[in-house]
Amino acid sequence: MARYGAVEAGGTKFLLAVGEDPLRLEQVTRIETSNEPQETMAAVVEFIRRSGPVEALGVATFGPVDFATGRITTTPKLAWRDFPLRGWLEQALGVPVGFDTDVNGAALAEARYGAGRGVEDLVYFTVGTGIGGGAVAGGRLVHGLMHSEMGHLLVRRAPDEVPGFAGVCPYHGDCLEGMASGPAIEARWGRPAETLPQNHPAWRVEADYLAQACMAVSCVLSPCVIVLGGGVMGQAHLLERIRARTAAYANGYFPLPRIEWPALEHPGLSGALILAVEAAR
Amino acid sequence: MARYGAVEAGGTKFLLAVGEDPLRLEQVTRIETSNEPQETMAAVVEFIRRSGPVEALGVATFGPVDFATGRITTTPKLAWRDFPLRGWLEQALGVPVGFDTDVNGAALAEARYGAGRGVEDLVYFTVGTGIGGGAVAGGRLVHGLMHSEMGHLLVRRAPDEVPGFAGVCPYHGDCLEGMASGPAIEARWGRPAETLPQNHPAWRVEADYLAQACMAVSCVLSPCVIVLGGGVMGQAHLLERIRARTAAYANGYFPLPRIEWPALEHPGLSGALILAVEAAR
Repeated sequence: MARYGAVEAGGTKFLLAVGEDPLRLEQVTRIETSNEPQETMAAVVEFIRRSGPVEALGVATFGPVDFATGRITTTPKLAWRDFPLRGWLEQALGVPVGFDTDVNGAALAEARYGAGRGVEDLVYFTVGTGIGGGAVAGGRLVHGLMHSEMGHLLVRRAPDEVPGFAGVCPYHGDCLEGMASGPAIEARWGRPAETLPQNHPAWRVEADYLAQACMAVSCVLSPCVIVLGGGVMGQAHLLERIRARTAAYANGYFPLPRIEWPALEHPGLSGALILAVEAAR
Repeated sequence: MARYGAVEAGGTKFLLAVGEDPLRLEQVTRIETSNEPQETMAAVVEFIRRSGPVEALGVATFGPVDFATGRITTTPKLAWRDFPLRGWLEQALGVPVGFDTDVNGAALAEARYGAGRGVEDLVYFTVGTGIGGGAVAGGRLVHGLMHSEMGHLLVRRAPDEVPGFAGVCPYHGDCLEGMASGPAIEARWGRPAETLPQNHPAWRVEADYLAQACMAVSCVLSPCVIVLGGGVMGQAHLLERIRARTAAYANGYFPLPRIEWPALEHPGLSGALILAVEAAR
């Protein structure tokens, strides 16, 4: 069977793997994201050379990205701004490189092999340092003018919001990411999310914003499944709260998607491997 | 060339046509929507028999609809609730019937032949008695668990909202439809939308909500073009206000879609003809 390489490129870490099957990633390796892109690239190339040969590489990356040029564009990580990630790897490795956003990769993997196995319409959110969302509609990844930027959905103030909290998004202040990302939780309550106990009001507020996000994508895309991943979702009680709050917002008007945890260990990395398989075709 | 029938089914009127080409609709005919579905159906069948023969029929209908059974489901028009529109017409006419929502039909027609000619990613909103939205992503209509219900997007209060106005949506009160549909405008200001002068504050409020809708679909779908149609959009000044307000909300974070009027005279009916062509394949 053919062998492929997979890269999940994040702002703080890169995850690397090789394999034949998105469900059986081999040699999963984590490297720090350097402030010197060339340095990170050299480590990726070395990993693939050592673990290959591979027929193609798939990259699921932080963004925003430009698909026409294969670049990361307006990231706050200045050294990576306009870095030609796809072209660089194509040239260094001499194989086709499939290229998409990290959340589109994760959405694809969860739709084909994870929580959405058997459905053609799925949204994947990651809730962590930032918030991003990717979508599969009719079995295919959603692109357009660029790609989804679901972290910047406008939200209403949650009923239990702290008065005067302005949000942390540098562009929009109180958009979804500005109100519900890890840094937003820490800015609002003065403590990192993972230190807040289960009965802290933070979680009611958090569930409200993520329910608004579920409601928004349900109205626009009508997915069968919404998968919620990322560091902030590492709270066993949170998913049920979000489901209940989403149902309250929808108020019986339309059938709601299943709202689920990721079923895969590394959705983005498995997605990158799928992108590699498709690039090889 | 083959000839097709097209039906745009609305809650107050049905538009009917036949033709070979979605851009050249023939014998465009309007009939009132009866409270007796059988009566409306008989008129449709008579029209098609008189104007045919047709190879297939396309129906772009008010909803919500269930694609599995071809029925209109929970419409407030009680006589039409659970009416098996697709099956009834298939049986009566003996031809294939393509079937989708009115706004999906309009989105398809505007994407292929109208304001979005040449793009594969487009959202169509109709703003009138209700608000609905349909989408084409990657050249294909967006479906899922059911279909888009963009009228029920949650919105923030517009900065110039009338204090205490609760919205008119029977399910959600102050969702997009509850705040920005024709009946919402009339309930808020005590006068029908079409009687409000251009300098009335109503239009600033209206533009804000519709800009929020444009922002939401941009975050989720990243369309290249958003088309705004429907009775409430019959204000020459409104489109430019919505563009400006959308740009203010996006605040330079991502490239914005073109926001346009419909380019077709009858987007839903042209869409129905496309559905007929596809059903005949």
